[in-house]
Parts: sequence; C-alpha cells; structure tokens
Amino acid sequence: MKQSLGAKTLLLPTPVWIVGTFDTEGKANAAAVAWGGIVCSKPPCVGVSLRAATQTHGNILAREAFTVNVPSVAQAEAADYFGIASGHDVDKFAATGLTPVKSDLVDAPYIAEFPVVAECRLFKVVELGLHTQFVGEIVDVKADASVVEDGSANIERVKPFVYNTHRRIYYAVGKAIGPAFEIGKAIGG
Amino acid sequence: MKQSLGAKTLLLPTPVWIVGTFDTEGKANAAAVAWGGIVCSKPPCVGVSLRAATQTHGNILAREAFTVNVPSVAQAEAADYFGIASGHDVDKFAATGLTPVKSDLVDAPYIAEFPVVAECRLFKVVELGLHTQFVGEIVDVKADASVVEDGSANIERVKPFVYNTHRRIYYAVGKAIGPAFEIGKAIGG
Repeated sequence: MKQSLGAKTLLLPTPVWIVGTFDTEGKANAAAVAWGGIVCSKPPCVGVSLRAATQTHGNILAREAFTVNVPSVAQAEAADYFGIASGHDVDKFAATGLTPVKSDLVDAPYIAEFPVVAECRLFKVVELGLHTQFVGEIVDVKADASVVEDGSANIERVKPFVYNTHRRIYYAVGKAIGPAFEIGKAIGG
Repeated sequence: MKQSLGAKTLLLPTPVWIVGTFDTEGKANAAAVAWGGIVCSKPPCVGVSLRAATQTHGNILAREAFTVNVPSVAQAEAADYFGIASGHDVDKFAATGLTPVKSDLVDAPYIAEFPVVAECRLFKVVELGLHTQFVGEIVDVKADASVVEDGSANIERVKPFVYNTHRRIYYAVGKAIGPAFEIGKAIGG
C-alpha cells in the first residue's frame, strides 16, 4: 500500500552538476544544479534549470552558452560550495582555488580540475515557473585522459555522485548491477 | 590535459525511471527513460524525453498525463525489459507480471511494485529534435511505507540505480558522502 507524500520534487536520484558561465564582463561563475538531465540525443542536448535570481541565469541569457561540469566525489566540498555561495557576492573560483578555462567552442568557462565537462551553446529557453530550463546543445565533451576508456568516460573512474533532494545528502555511485539492454532479455523471451 | 570525446550525450550519471501511460483504448504501457530529470520546483515538474516512434510518446499526447516510477535494484531486470520491448508489439505489464494501478489523480497508471511513483499531468511539450521532452507537473508522489522516513523517501531504502550511457551499464547508488549545503561551508567561510 502506497502512502501519499504530496506534490513534491522528490524523484530520485538527481545528478550533481556544476554549470560554468561568464558574466557580461567576462568574470567566470559556477553554480551547482540537481535539476538537470540529458534531454535529446540528436542534437545532443542537456537541460539545466535555474532560478531567475541566480547570477548563472542572467549569464546564460547574456552569453548564450554554458558548460556542464561533472565533479568527482573528492571534489564534493567544492561542488557543495558552488551551490551555497552566490556569484553575486563572491568569486567562487577564487574561493575554491579551481581553474576556469575559457572554452574555444562556446562563450563559457569549464572547470579544469573536474574529470568530465560538456561545452554547450544555448539551444532553447523553457520558462516553467520558479525555474527556467536552459537547454544547451552539447558541442563537445572533454574528459581527463585518466577517466577515458574506449572513447567514453568510465563512471568507475569519474566517480560522480548523486543527490537525495529531500534528505539533502550526497551519495556516491556504487557497484555495477548489470548491462543495459541485456538483463531484461530474460523476460518475455 | 583534457581529451575531446565529441558532441555526445555522455554526461553522467543519468537516472533510470519508468514512464507509465495509457493508450487511447486504456491499455497500460511502461517505458524506461534515462533522459529525464526534475526541471522546476514551483510548480513541481519533472521532464522525460521520448522519441516520436515510441508508443509512450503518442500515449502522453493522447492522455495528457504520465507517471514516473522509480525502480529498486531488485527490479532492474524488469526496468531493463521496459527499455527493450515496445508497447507497439507486446503487453509489457503482462510480460513482467507487474501491476498497473490507475491513478485517481491523473489519466495514467503507476506501477504498484515500484517503491516511489510520481503522478504527473502534462504541463509542457518541448520539441527538441529526435526527442520530445514532456514536462509533467507532479500532482502527487506516492511511496511504499517501507521506504518512507520523515515524510520523504529514504534513498538507502529505495535503492534506485543509475545508468552510464556510453558503457551501457547500470550502477547502484552507493555510500553517503556528506550533507548538502553543509560540507561546502568549509570553503570561503
């Protein structure tokens, strides 16, 4: 028997991604998002949702570009800081000691130290309510050589983490449980 | 030094969620999605992306509703099957033995056996390319009493899993690594 928990955003898990942007004067900013996901395969697109009050929201509209940076568990403290501090008040790169690298492909900075980054040009703006969803077309994904395997990022090397919204706790990605498009073949075959 | 991996959808991790719908004749269908995420807090909204070729795509347009069902690792085989089989060809509920429950709130079925489900009314349709993103307003979230703690779903009891797209492997959610909006306070304080 199921219990009603109300009209809440408590689906799980959600990713922890850092959105990199430039402001109108070229200062780099970075903000943590859990409201995000891949949204289309062709063109390859990712969506990230931000409140209008954030500096990142204004930066994306001004520069029509952003990056999505995947932190590793060892970088959880910095990732969390990117979700606490506001780019209106502080220079988050200076505070964390992390390095913004200007993308050659889009008008936004990515984070040098994070293992996987996607450079995105603004593709669509979707006004939803408190949050605006920015859909970015992924122009390139870059990864540290140390996490690359067969032309892709090996999640066991990247060690990304997820977020349990309502309990406000980060969790590591754990053990492999099986190959997709394989384990289900046992059913109805 | 970073290595270019190309314009690909290999951000990670992505969730593994099952979308429940009715067709025009009231037959229940369920499809696995990894292209999805929370997209807005007010109204509470979730986005799921589907190709026009899928039965779920047509069902959502016809019924203007869907559910998002979170499988537990023990249900990975069924979840994978929901991503392999097509509702055009088979009755996926009959094949898996899982139970579609007609929602009282929206015109869609949820999966009785899955620990967390969200009932959604269609809020916005975003055409992106190969995929259409369906944004659903979450009308209610329901969870098994066994996974509820303090009015929310405890991820350690739900045991959801994630997907590493390009390696096509499912991974369990692992250990807690720290509280959000807390561990970052050590920086810049």
